[in-house]
Amino acid sequence: MSEIKEQAEHEVEALLTSLSDKNMDEFRSIFLEQHPYDQANVFSKLDLDQRNTVYQYLSPEEMAALFENIEDDDGQYETYLSEMDPTFAAQMLAQMYADDAVDVLNELDKDQVASYLTIMDDDAAEEIRELLHYEEYTAGSIMTTEYISIHAHQTVHSAMQILKQEAPNAETIYYVFVIDEDEKLAGVISLRDLIISDSDTMISEIMSERVYSVSVAEDQEEVARKMKDYNFLALPVVDFQGHLLGIITVDDIVDVIDEEASDDYSKLAAVSDVGSTDRNPFSAAKKRLPWLIILLFLGMFTASLIGRFEETLDKVAILAVFIPLIAGMAGNTGTQALAVAVRRISLGDTEDQSLSKMVFKEAGTGLITGTICGIVVALTVFIWKGTLFLGILVGLSILATLTVATISGAFIPLIMHKLKVDPAVASGPFITTINDIISILIYFGMATLFMQYLI
Amino acid sequence: MSEIKEQAEHEVEALLTSLSDKNMDEFRSIFLEQHPYDQANVFSKLDLDQRNTVYQYLSPEEMAALFENIEDDDGQYETYLSEMDPTFAAQMLAQMYADDAVDVLNELDKDQVASYLTIMDDDAAEEIRELLHYEEYTAGSIMTTEYISIHAHQTVHSAMQILKQEAPNAETIYYVFVIDEDEKLAGVISLRDLIISDSDTMISEIMSERVYSVSVAEDQEEVARKMKDYNFLALPVVDFQGHLLGIITVDDIVDVIDEEASDDYSKLAAVSDVGSTDRNPFSAAKKRLPWLIILLFLGMFTASLIGRFEETLDKVAILAVFIPLIAGMAGNTGTQALAVAVRRISLGDTEDQSLSKMVFKEAGTGLITGTICGIVVALTVFIWKGTLFLGILVGLSILATLTVATISGAFIPLIMHKLKVDPAVASGPFITTINDIISILIYFGMATLFMQYLI
Repeated sequence: MSEIKEQAEHEVEALLTSLSDKNMDEFRSIFLEQHPYDQANVFSKLDLDQRNTVYQYLSPEEMAALFENIEDDDGQYETYLSEMDPTFAAQMLAQMYADDAVDVLNELDKDQVASYLTIMDDDAAEEIRELLHYEEYTAGSIMTTEYISIHAHQTVHSAMQILKQEAPNAETIYYVFVIDEDEKLAGVISLRDLIISDSDTMISEIMSERVYSVSVAEDQEEVARKMKDYNFLALPVVDFQGHLLGIITVDDIVDVIDEEASDDYSKLAAVSDVGSTDRNPFSAAKKRLPWLIILLFLGMFTASLIGRFEETLDKVAILAVFIPLIAGMAGNTGTQALAVAVRRISLGDTEDQSLSKMVFKEAGTGLITGTICGIVVALTVFIWKGTLFLGILVGLSILATLTVATISGAFIPLIMHKLKVDPAVASGPFITTINDIISILIYFGMATLFMQYLI
Repeated sequence: MSEIKEQAEHEVEALLTSLSDKNMDEFRSIFLEQHPYDQANVFSKLDLDQRNTVYQYLSPEEMAALFENIEDDDGQYETYLSEMDPTFAAQMLAQMYADDAVDVLNELDKDQVASYLTIMDDDAAEEIRELLHYEEYTAGSIMTTEYISIHAHQTVHSAMQILKQEAPNAETIYYVFVIDEDEKLAGVISLRDLIISDSDTMISEIMSERVYSVSVAEDQEEVARKMKDYNFLALPVVDFQGHLLGIITVDDIVDVIDEEASDDYSKLAAVSDVGSTDRNPFSAAKKRLPWLIILLFLGMFTASLIGRFEETLDKVAILAVFIPLIAGMAGNTGTQALAVAVRRISLGDTEDQSLSKMVFKEAGTGLITGTICGIVVALTVFIWKGTLFLGILVGLSILATLTVATISGAFIPLIMHKLKVDPAVASGPFITTINDIISILIYFGMATLFMQYLI
């Protein structure tokens, strides 16, 4: 285990003791030494009494740093805020980075938000109100307005003065943004370039005019992709006229990448939220049941399809033996193709040409894997059961279903993407069920057609 | 589309023209204005002739920035390096950030690595040689040695001097690490704190002694989790005695998070590398076939199990109708439970107590979903087929399989984790196949037992 963890565990006990002893000085001297993430971890393990003591021992500003690291898995934001004195809560929200405060307020109902904004001082309330307008999952919703901006006609010296002055409030000081008279984004300069330049140099001489920015309405996934590709620590956000509105910092992007990947993953498994740690089986069951019931009825449909071939089954009962094999293989190849397609679309590869190429490629892949698996199955069944024709029938079914299933696995998310539906919704189990149906039609269709050779 | 993209497309044509006109000045003036990520994108679209021209037009240092952004999906590192003059290639590798150079060299065979290191200047070769020793996927393998370190007894002024001097070569200057006489990590100070402090202040007064570090052998996934939780831009890496060996920067961590998520996702779908963009269906088929063949034989085993119940099937052919439904539902719930378990283990929740709690919770969830789905199925089958007993049989089978499948979906990855096998390997299709087998045993076992009521 790492040093971080050992240290924290050792201190947690001391903190709990200081709380029960009502020893404020002791508590503050240990607690404020900790990283806010560790503070939040300790805090979330306290009971109501202990939390009430903490609200008395910390200033709104100290509480803000802690609160930025609280996760809202189970309505924690609302619980904790309602425990605090409203004025204390409003002051704390005002002290948080604006983007984090907005994340908290987004989880409350409108009346609560309005009342906190009323108590808060006007500047902070105004800043938060602006950010609250942006739609979820857009650049606007994750940006912060706490950036540093300067003008091109300033010197490095005067820029450094501004920087020193604003450093305590800015979310990052490592990029400074240059704006023109109309507040339009005109350039960028890194702190690295500032400190290695002479203090008389004009900003216009050393700033980079080739400044990368994102539009305020851009999808957060797209923003994350850019930040990852270009290795930026912060990206400016502009409106449609190019005015600088805010910045997005890399720590928020790390969270977005993690969320989006979790999201694709959850949908592949048809669980609505794989990351949450449900306290009890009932809430977990509640989340999974809707998917299961839908899949159940799709499964009933598959069953009714097989029911139509009852006559065939009555004559050749052995056919039933291979149903799970064929349906299963269709599901497996379909899921593979689906995963590749969803991930490619997620990663931003969305040109028509490249996507239709992908479907053609998947068709080829399906044909190759289908042929090989078909031959293997035909031989195995022949050796096992001793009937050549049954082997050929199962082998041909595998060939046909694998080809069709692979194409459908790639094609369906593509169609969904065109229809502006998140392709990840075409989750694993859905593709599997669709491919079940396809495979059963192919298998029993062929069996009924060539019945005479089977009996 | 964003402004970035339009700009790039417009310039690509101008670049191609300048290459075919052999206009070096024009090429350099456009190319060097671009971000290295864009340069790499353009470069990877060029043909051999054009690439050879680029090698002549750029210095090793300029080429290094580009090369840091090249992806090695298809052996590109080896191809491009072999096209360059060996001395040029070695100089370029020496100019790259050491961690990136190591990533490149790790893709080459040992003789090639040795020959490049021989041509390279000694300092760079030494640095790279050290990093090459660390095992893949550890903190050591992703760290860089290009950090800035100072001593506690220095003043802010002298620290800033060192910083300005080393800035061009350091991967980040936003954290400066404080070491003691034995080169042990003693503290950290951010550039933010440096620039807002008086220049006479001693580093020891303002540095943070509570410095978070990771061990050189720590898993990269664990490092990524820490960096994400604590919102660091860089983390120091130490050996077991606490000596500072290197740092890991947030841009590398963004890649790790993305890779690890892709990895879990790939394994859930049983595709070995979902992120790679294979050029042709043969290479894609080659990657997927091993999984499919294994699953095929597992499927054959399932088939042989059903074969054992051929007598039952012969008497009551209608039983076959519900095979895909029951097997499918078992697969679906198993995958849901698996996804939750794998993700929790991935996210670092690995305490025994919390894991065994998870299995109990999943058992409860399985029982609840099983009961509800079982009742729904029993009623539907009764209404559809008119036979009460068939409905009860299918309903009870669903109840039993859902409970067992949910438990196995949570329990199997946990066992694998205990056995130090990556639980994500227990991919969706494997769990599905295991649950196919369980569900068929339950279904046919019950049907055979109560045969008398069915006929």
